[in-house]
Amino acid sequence: MNYQPILNSIYKAIKTTKDKGKVANYIPELSQVSTDNFGICLLNNTQETFKVGDALKPFSIQSISKVLALAKVFSLVDNDLWKRVDVEPSGNPFNHLSLLEHENGIPRNPLINSGALVIADILVSNLENPKEDFLQFIRTITNDNSIDYNLNVANSERLTGYRNYAAAYLLKSFGNLENDVEKVLDFYFHQCAIAMTCEQLTKAFFLFSNQGKCIQEKQILSKSQTKRINAIMLTCGFYDEAGEFAFEVGLPGKSGVGGGIVALLPNHFVISVWSPGLNSKGNSKLGMQALEKFTTETKISIF
Amino acid sequence: MNYQPILNSIYKAIKTTKDKGKVANYIPELSQVSTDNFGICLLNNTQETFKVGDALKPFSIQSISKVLALAKVFSLVDNDLWKRVDVEPSGNPFNHLSLLEHENGIPRNPLINSGALVIADILVSNLENPKEDFLQFIRTITNDNSIDYNLNVANSERLTGYRNYAAAYLLKSFGNLENDVEKVLDFYFHQCAIAMTCEQLTKAFFLFSNQGKCIQEKQILSKSQTKRINAIMLTCGFYDEAGEFAFEVGLPGKSGVGGGIVALLPNHFVISVWSPGLNSKGNSKLGMQALEKFTTETKISIF
Amino acid sequence: MNYQPILNSIYKAIKTTKDKGKVANYIPELSQVSTDNFGICLLNNTQETFKVGDALKPFSIQSISKVLALAKVFSLVDNDLWKRVDVEPSGNPFNHLSLLEHENGIPRNPLINSGALVIADILVSNLENPKEDFLQFIRTITNDNSIDYNLNVANSERLTGYRNYAAAYLLKSFGNLENDVEKVLDFYFHQCAIAMTCEQLTKAFFLFSNQGKCIQEKQILSKSQTKRINAIMLTCGFYDEAGEFAFEVGLPGKSGVGGGIVALLPNHFVISVWSPGLNSKGNSKLGMQALEKFTTETKISIF
Amino acid sequence: MNYQPILNSIYKAIKTTKDKGKVANYIPELSQVSTDNFGICLLNNTQETFKVGDALKPFSIQSISKVLALAKVFSLVDNDLWKRVDVEPSGNPFNHLSLLEHENGIPRNPLINSGALVIADILVSNLENPKEDFLQFIRTITNDNSIDYNLNVANSERLTGYRNYAAAYLLKSFGNLENDVEKVLDFYFHQCAIAMTCEQLTKAFFLFSNQGKCIQEKQILSKSQTKRINAIMLTCGFYDEAGEFAFEVGLPGKSGVGGGIVALLPNHFVISVWSPGLNSKGNSKLGMQALEKFTTETKISIF
Repeated sequence: MNYQPILNSIYKAIKTTKDKGKVANYIPELSQVSTDNFGICLLNNTQETFKVGDALKPFSIQSISKVLALAKVFSLVDNDLWKRVDVEPSGNPFNHLSLLEHENGIPRNPLINSGALVIADILVSNLENPKEDFLQFIRTITNDNSIDYNLNVANSERLTGYRNYAAAYLLKSFGNLENDVEKVLDFYFHQCAIAMTCEQLTKAFFLFSNQGKCIQEKQILSKSQTKRINAIMLTCGFYDEAGEFAFEVGLPGKSGVGGGIVALLPNHFVISVWSPGLNSKGNSKLGMQALEKFTTETKISIF
Repeated sequence: MNYQPILNSIYKAIKTTKDKGKVANYIPELSQVSTDNFGICLLNNTQETFKVGDALKPFSIQSISKVLALAKVFSLVDNDLWKRVDVEPSGNPFNHLSLLEHENGIPRNPLINSGALVIADILVSNLENPKEDFLQFIRTITNDNSIDYNLNVANSERLTGYRNYAAAYLLKSFGNLENDVEKVLDFYFHQCAIAMTCEQLTKAFFLFSNQGKCIQEKQILSKSQTKRINAIMLTCGFYDEAGEFAFEVGLPGKSGVGGGIVALLPNHFVISVWSPGLNSKGNSKLGMQALEKFTTETKISIF
Repeated sequence: MNYQPILNSIYKAIKTTKDKGKVANYIPELSQVSTDNFGICLLNNTQETFKVGDALKPFSIQSISKVLALAKVFSLVDNDLWKRVDVEPSGNPFNHLSLLEHENGIPRNPLINSGALVIADILVSNLENPKEDFLQFIRTITNDNSIDYNLNVANSERLTGYRNYAAAYLLKSFGNLENDVEKVLDFYFHQCAIAMTCEQLTKAFFLFSNQGKCIQEKQILSKSQTKRINAIMLTCGFYDEAGEFAFEVGLPGKSGVGGGIVALLPNHFVISVWSPGLNSKGNSKLGMQALEKFTTETKISIF
Repeated sequence: MNYQPILNSIYKAIKTTKDKGKVANYIPELSQVSTDNFGICLLNNTQETFKVGDALKPFSIQSISKVLALAKVFSLVDNDLWKRVDVEPSGNPFNHLSLLEHENGIPRNPLINSGALVIADILVSNLENPKEDFLQFIRTITNDNSIDYNLNVANSERLTGYRNYAAAYLLKSFGNLENDVEKVLDFYFHQCAIAMTCEQLTKAFFLFSNQGKCIQEKQILSKSQTKRINAIMLTCGFYDEAGEFAFEVGLPGKSGVGGGIVALLPNHFVISVWSPGLNSKGNSKLGMQALEKFTTETKISIF
C-alpha cells in the first residue's frame, strides 16, 4: 500500500493548526525547540519508508526510550523482570509517587517513570558498560551508528530531575533498586536524552511490528515477548491518556515529552510523528491529532 | 480453521486442575454453583461453532452485561455518552468509590461499577420499557428468545448490593444520575442477572468481532463504535487485572463474577469460557488459564 | 470575670466585616438565612450568661449535633463505641468516602459524617423511640423544652442528602450499620435539624466544660468521658480546619454548616457564635474570626 | 505537688510488662539498645525534678528534635513559616509522600518528616553555622553544655535514609526546599541524632510549659508562639496515633523512634519517658502506657 498520499494529506490538514500546544519547559534544550516542527514517517514491514515534513530532523525521544530499554531488559532477563515491576495501567500522570508508596515499591508498569528506573537499574546491573552498550543496542537495531546521546539534554535533566531522584530514592527505600541512585539516574538521564529523527524512530521500533526481528533481521525478542511489549504499550504508553489513545487511535504506541510519538500495527508498519507542542496530558498535541486522523481515515486499528 | 482439537486439548488439560478458585459468595444463587462446571465455546466469523464441556449450561453473566449495555447506549446516544463517563483504565478493584470522588463523579470507564450505573441510567432515560427493551435487544442480537433474566439473582443482588447503592447515591450527589436511584439499580440488578450459556454469549458478542453487525447481520454499531468498545474491553475489561490479561492473552474481553469470560479476535472469532471459581482478582481462575493457553498455543493475539 | 465588654468589643469589630462568607446553599432552609445574623453567647461555670447580637435567634445546629449524639452514645455504651469508629483526625473535608473505603468501613472519627452515621445507628439500636428520646435528652441537658426539630430542614436534607445515603450504604456494605439505611438517615437528618439559639447551645455544651454534669447538675458523662469528647472536638471538630482552629483558637469546639460554632474552656466556660456565612472550609467565617479574636485578646487557651 | 510517689508507682507497675514492643531496627545504633531501659522524669514549673529508673541515661531523641527545630525557626522567622508548611494533622504514618504530592509540596505539618525537612531547610538558610548554632540553642535552653550529636547515629541515618532523600527531592521538585538536598539532610540527620537523657529532655521542653521562657528564664518564644506549638504537638505529635494520644493522655507531646516521649501540662510541668520498644505505630509502647496511667491516676489533662 502506498501511504504517501495519506501522510501528505494529514500533514497538510494539521500543519496549519493554530494551537500547537506548549513545549516542555523544564529544561532549556526542550523549551527552545520551535512548535513549527512537524514530521511524520511510516516504515512498513517490507521496509519501505514514507515520510513528510521534518521527518529527518533529530529530536529528544525522552520517554519513548523506555520501550527500547524494556526490550533490552526483556532480552536479557526474560520474565524475571516481572518480579520487580507490574504490567497494570496506572491511570495517573507519569510522575506520581503515591501509587509506588501504596504498592510497596513495585511500580505499576515499566513505562511510568518509577518503572523505567527499575528497568534502568537492571540494565546497569547487567551491562558491562551500560551507557555504551545500550547505545550500541540502539545503533544495532536501527543499523545506524549516527544515533547518539545529546549530552546537554542529559546534563540538564540531571540538574533539574528532582522528582526522578525522589522516585529513585523511594524505590531504594523499598529495596527495589540494586545500584547507587546516582549511577542509575546517570544512565536513565542519558537514555532519555537519545536524539532521533522520525525515520530513525520507525527503524528502532521496527522489531515490535516484525515479531521481534529488527531491521537487520536479527531476532532481538521472541514473538511472545514482542506481543507482550505491544500489549504494555497499548495499556500504558500514554500516561493517563492511555485509554484515550487506545480508544481514538487503537494502536500500541509510546509518546515522549520531546513531542515524539511512535505507534505500530503488528505485522504491518511503524509510524512516528514529531511535533514538540504538548497537550495538557503531556503528549504531542499535533501528534495525537495526526495519528487519530491516520487511523480514522485508513480505518486501521488492532481492534 | 478447525478449532475443535485445540478446545478439546485445553479442556482436557485444565479440567483436572485441583485449585479451581472460589465461587462468589455474596448471594446464594452464585455461591451454590459447583466449581466443577467448565465449558468453552468459539464462534468464528463464518458462524461456525466449536464447543466443549458445559457450553450449553446457563450461568449468570453479571459484569459481562456491562459491555452489552454499553453497546446499546452507544447505538442510542453515540459520543454524547463520553460527557458522563471516561475511557481510562482504573487500575483498581471494581468497586472502589475513591476514584469517583476524586474525579467529580465522572467514572473512570463504563466497565467499572460506577460507570456501568451511568450507562444503566442512560438506558433508563432512553428506553420506553427499560428492562423489556434491553432484554429484547439481547434476544435480537443473539437471535434467541429463550434468554431471560434470572429473577432470583436480580432480587438477591437488590437485597445485598449496598455498595452499588453507595455508588449510585454518590453519582447522584455529583449530578451524574438522572433517574431515581432505585429505578436505576432495579434495571442494573436485572441487567447483571441475565443468564446465558457459553454458546449464547459468543452469539451476543459476535457483533464486536464482526465490525458492528450482529449474528442476524443487522448493523448494531458503526465500525468505529465497535473498534472503540473493543479498545475499552482491552484496557478496562478485567478490573485491576486488565493489564495482565492484555499481557498474557492479548485479546479484548470481559469477565463476570459468575465465572464467565468472553474474548474476541476482531474479524475472526468470539470465544467464551465458563468456570465459576474465581481468582483473587475476581476473574474466573480456569477461564483465565484456558484463554492464556488458547492464545499461547494458537499464537493468536491482536498484538 | 465579666466577659460582657470583650464580647461587645468583638461584636462591634467584626459585625461590619464586608465579606461575611457564603451561606450553605444545598437546601432552601439554609440558603435563605441572612448573613447579617451575628450573635455570641458565653456561659461560665457559675452559670452566668453574657450575650450580644442575635444570641436568642434559633438556627440549624447541623453538625454541632454530632457532639451531642456522641455524648448520648458514650453515656449508653461507653467504650464499646470505639470498636466501630476511630478517634483520629481525618485531615479531609467532611464528606470524603475514600478514607472509609481504605479503612474497611471504620470511620476515622465520630465527627465526620460517616462516623456520625455510625453514632446515629447506635442510638437507633439503643433508644426505644430514637427521635423522641434524643430530643428529650437535649431538652434535659439544656433544661429547655422549647428546643425542637425543624421538620422542614429535616425533610429537605432527606431529599438532597445523596452523599449521606452513599456513606450509609458504604458503611452497610462493610457491616458497620446495624439498622436500615432509611431508618438511620431519618434519625440523622432530624438530629442535624435541631434548631437552637446561641444561648441554648451554650447550655447544651455546658456539661463538657463542667466535667460531665449538665446545667441541671445531673452527671451525664464521667469526667474521663468528658475529657475524651473534648479531645475529639479539639482534634476533629473542624473538618480539615481542625489543626488551624487548635492553632489559632486553642479550644475544643465544633462547627456546623448552619453557621454555628461552639467552643469551651474546660472548667471555665462555653462560648457559642452564630454567623451563617461560611468560609471555603465550611466553617462560619465571622464565627472563626470572633473566636480567634476572643482567645487572642483574653489570652485564653488550653495550651 | 510531690510527683515522686506516682512516678514510682507507675514505674513499678509498668517496668515488668512482658511485651515491651520492638526497637527500631533500621540502624544498628537504635537496634542494639536494650528494651529493658525505662526511665521517667518530671520537671515542674518551679523547677523541681522528680525521676525514676533510667532517667539519666542518654538516648537518641530522633523526631522529638522536630519540636525544638520548629521552636528555633519560629523564633527566627515567626509566621512567615506558615507559607511553607501547614498545621493540619496528617492522619497518616510519618513517612508517607502521597499527601505531599497531592498538596503541591506543602507538608501537612512541621512534625511529619517532610515538614521537618522544610524546617531544617529554613534553619540551614538562616543560621550561620547550622549544626553548631542549633546545638548551641539546645545547650542554652537546657543550660547544659554536655548535650551533643551522636555522630554514629547521624552517619547511619545518612547511609540508610532513602525515604528522607525521596521526601527532600520531592520538596525540591515543588520548589519548597531552598538549599541543596545533601546539605539539608546532613543537618536533619544530625538534628535527629541528638542524644539526651529524660532529665535533659524535660529541661529542653520547659519553655513550652513556661509560656516561652526557657529554664534560664530567657524568653525564647512569645506566649502566642508557645501556645501554637503546643497546639501542633497535640494535633500532630504522634503520627497516626495523635488522636489516640489526645484521647487517652490529653496532653501536648512528641514521640521519637528512639523510644522517647515528652509531654507537658501548660503552666505546670513537663514529663518525659524513655523505653526503646515501640508499638505498631512507632511510638514507645511502655512510654504510651506510662503517660496514660499518669494522666488517668492524677486526672491531669488539658481537657
